[in-house]
Amino acid sequence: MTAMSGLDHTVLDELTRALTEAPVTDPDILDGHRHDMASFCPAGVPAALVRPRTAAEVSAVLRIASAHRIPVVPQGARTGLSGAANAVDGALLLSLARMDAVLEVDVIDQVAVAQPGVTNAALSRAVAEAGLFYPPDPSSWESSTIGGNVATNAGGLCCVKYGVTGDFVRGLEVVLADGEVIRTGRRTVKGVAGYDLTRLLVGSEGTLGVITEVTLGLRPAPEPVLTAAATFPAAAGALAAAAEVMAAGLRPSLLELIDQVTLRAIQDLRDFGFEPDLGAMLVAQSDRGGGAADDVARIAEICRNHGARDVAVAENAEEGELLLAARRSVNAALERLGATLIDDIAVPRSRLGDLLEGLHEIASEHEVLIACPGHVGDGNMHPTVVFDRADPDAVRRAELAFGQVMQLGLTLGGTITGEHGVGRLKSAWLREEVGKRSWDLQRQLRAVFDPAGILNPGAVTG
Amino acid sequence: MTAMSGLDHTVLDELTRALTEAPVTDPDILDGHRHDMASFCPAGVPAALVRPRTAAEVSAVLRIASAHRIPVVPQGARTGLSGAANAVDGALLLSLARMDAVLEVDVIDQVAVAQPGVTNAALSRAVAEAGLFYPPDPSSWESSTIGGNVATNAGGLCCVKYGVTGDFVRGLEVVLADGEVIRTGRRTVKGVAGYDLTRLLVGSEGTLGVITEVTLGLRPAPEPVLTAAATFPAAAGALAAAAEVMAAGLRPSLLELIDQVTLRAIQDLRDFGFEPDLGAMLVAQSDRGGGAADDVARIAEICRNHGARDVAVAENAEEGELLLAARRSVNAALERLGATLIDDIAVPRSRLGDLLEGLHEIASEHEVLIACPGHVGDGNMHPTVVFDRADPDAVRRAELAFGQVMQLGLTLGGTITGEHGVGRLKSAWLREEVGKRSWDLQRQLRAVFDPAGILNPGAVTG
Repeated sequence: MTAMSGLDHTVLDELTRALTEAPVTDPDILDGHRHDMASFCPAGVPAALVRPRTAAEVSAVLRIASAHRIPVVPQGARTGLSGAANAVDGALLLSLARMDAVLEVDVIDQVAVAQPGVTNAALSRAVAEAGLFYPPDPSSWESSTIGGNVATNAGGLCCVKYGVTGDFVRGLEVVLADGEVIRTGRRTVKGVAGYDLTRLLVGSEGTLGVITEVTLGLRPAPEPVLTAAATFPAAAGALAAAAEVMAAGLRPSLLELIDQVTLRAIQDLRDFGFEPDLGAMLVAQSDRGGGAADDVARIAEICRNHGARDVAVAENAEEGELLLAARRSVNAALERLGATLIDDIAVPRSRLGDLLEGLHEIASEHEVLIACPGHVGDGNMHPTVVFDRADPDAVRRAELAFGQVMQLGLTLGGTITGEHGVGRLKSAWLREEVGKRSWDLQRQLRAVFDPAGILNPGAVTG
Repeated sequence: MTAMSGLDHTVLDELTRALTEAPVTDPDILDGHRHDMASFCPAGVPAALVRPRTAAEVSAVLRIASAHRIPVVPQGARTGLSGAANAVDGALLLSLARMDAVLEVDVIDQVAVAQPGVTNAALSRAVAEAGLFYPPDPSSWESSTIGGNVATNAGGLCCVKYGVTGDFVRGLEVVLADGEVIRTGRRTVKGVAGYDLTRLLVGSEGTLGVITEVTLGLRPAPEPVLTAAATFPAAAGALAAAAEVMAAGLRPSLLELIDQVTLRAIQDLRDFGFEPDLGAMLVAQSDRGGGAADDVARIAEICRNHGARDVAVAENAEEGELLLAARRSVNAALERLGATLIDDIAVPRSRLGDLLEGLHEIASEHEVLIACPGHVGDGNMHPTVVFDRADPDAVRRAELAFGQVMQLGLTLGGTITGEHGVGRLKSAWLREEVGKRSWDLQRQLRAVFDPAGILNPGAVTG
């Protein structure tokens, strides 16, 4: 691989002078940084990779990029699933990985301040050591970074009780496209001074500025978690049970559905004893202090009342992990069946039955397999199209099905993305969801932050 | 009072044709609509008042206002405390009061859809009847409207556990300055499609668009509330107890401080048996299902450990209301002492002691009385300058003190407004808090939504 448009020496010299660590132009290293984890999402050929160590270095990079009109693609751990961190031709890849310090955990204010390159796992551990809790837990939490989590407004398993990343972000330090450093938001619990630039930047996928510091609100340490799992002869029973759990006000800290297609794939991967005619599985957790045992017992009872075949309640955390093992095998099991296109639609909970039915029709029409595991408590499901990558016709059919899944989500009053983001994978769909005028407004807002359009071109609004 | 710049007949004719209810130009009625509840905040002389009944009528009003470049001031119940709903000269007052329907409460999706003119009380009741819970409870909840709550991102007593209005807003229908109607956000629990226009509009105080419909996420009905109250010889003990309650992870659903100045005013109003040397009072509530009694007992113990003089725990809701009676008397008690300028700063909880000390110095320097009741769990306090309105020098000193209170909040790492908003009262202070570039960005964002600047001129960014 050779860079399609290498940076000229002036630019490289400027970058070299501005940075502690020299810019990388080695094609092999660049090639390793072209993609995030989104499948079938195009990536260009970058010109260089820089790894600044301070906000001042990020500022210098952006001043240079602005002066020379070089596109900049901010990157964290590249675990995203929408191609928001994919390279464009001639881009400067701006990795925040070296800025990986937890700057502060304050027990009285219940606040953490972190650099963007800290992994979610490292931050969560640092916070737990102080007796506090940072809930957001995207599946990638062991390797994904806080900066990336904020830039994509990442979700996770515990959102059903605790909310998403953005619900914990109080303030940001951000480097604007022209290199100026601003602070948004606050350290205090509440604050309404001016427009909420923090929330505008959360989920903006590196298109409005580069996040160099994050101030996060924390919660008290959670109580121990208890787990229940139930299998159902048909998905309808599992959906009805999930709806009743939420309506009853049980506030589970996890409520996941595994559909029939996925259960079969999991059983193929490892013998969980799932019969082939099993319709669906629900896994639920509660961490309610003093009440978790009652909650999982009630969830188990609700599942039985909705025709569950087997219901298990874990007596402790280890048993709970066993019940979660099937859920944790989902991606490995599906990837073993073929290439996967993972979707991320969210629909009102009341439309989940229609969603499963619609997916079945799309799968039949395009002769693809569509699994549908997901966060049933939130209505945020991950329909996954499984297909043979070596068969061009299968690829074509899979991509058609993938688009129809998004259309189905919109038809059901939902969204094309519940937690993975728009990135480059879905930027053509954004306008469809938000409408022409709202899309125009978004492009105009983007131009206020980045008039030259150097920040992550192609992502979000295109 | 006469309108300084009445609307010409063409405009009035256009408005009359577009609206079910004729525009009001009666000077007495207009005079009654010039102000919200902010003290000492200037208001202009409006030209007319319109009360549209549908989004289409709001759209027509804004098209007419745009065409004739007439300033528009959106109004709800005018219970705000920052002058965001105050008239400007020649303005069209756009009251949303007639759009007061609760359109939907969905038990499965745990969502309510409401028009902006519904009062918080009416919405809360409708939601409770469906077995659900809409937590945000600004003090004005019985009369303030949901549209106004959203436009100011209103807080309240229960924020310490449940968050503020914005945390419950999922989607909006908004009429833009040029009359086009857009929808932002979603109905689903999660969603990350594009920039978060919903959060940008929340708290924008009618400067970016006129909210004509709100989709709100709800929670399961809360458990019954239990209450504890404790009096302390000095504020330091109350602050230490509050800090320990929060650090211990007790998650009270209310945690209020009443300072010495306020306690004396309350005792003057009605005999609560408070000794004159009493330093502070804490009131706390818990609604933790199955655990509220334990929680209030632990809070009581923490208070005793921090030197509380009297500690009372309510056995039931009626007793709880008695313990809250002092808190509910705060405004009446202070207003009896003189004119009041109510501030709304928020500081990190760890700086609350410094805040009280700083207020004491400001009060001494300017020879004014400063009370400081507030939401101690959130660090969001309401320093209230009490003075003699009839004495011009006292008014001058009070206004100086009011400014110094905001400066103190900023010096302590806080914000000039935790929940009341910037409005017109604090627009000159916004730039001080957010900095020049961020303020410039905010003005540019505003211009994207409202290039002609007709929406609520003078509020927020000025």
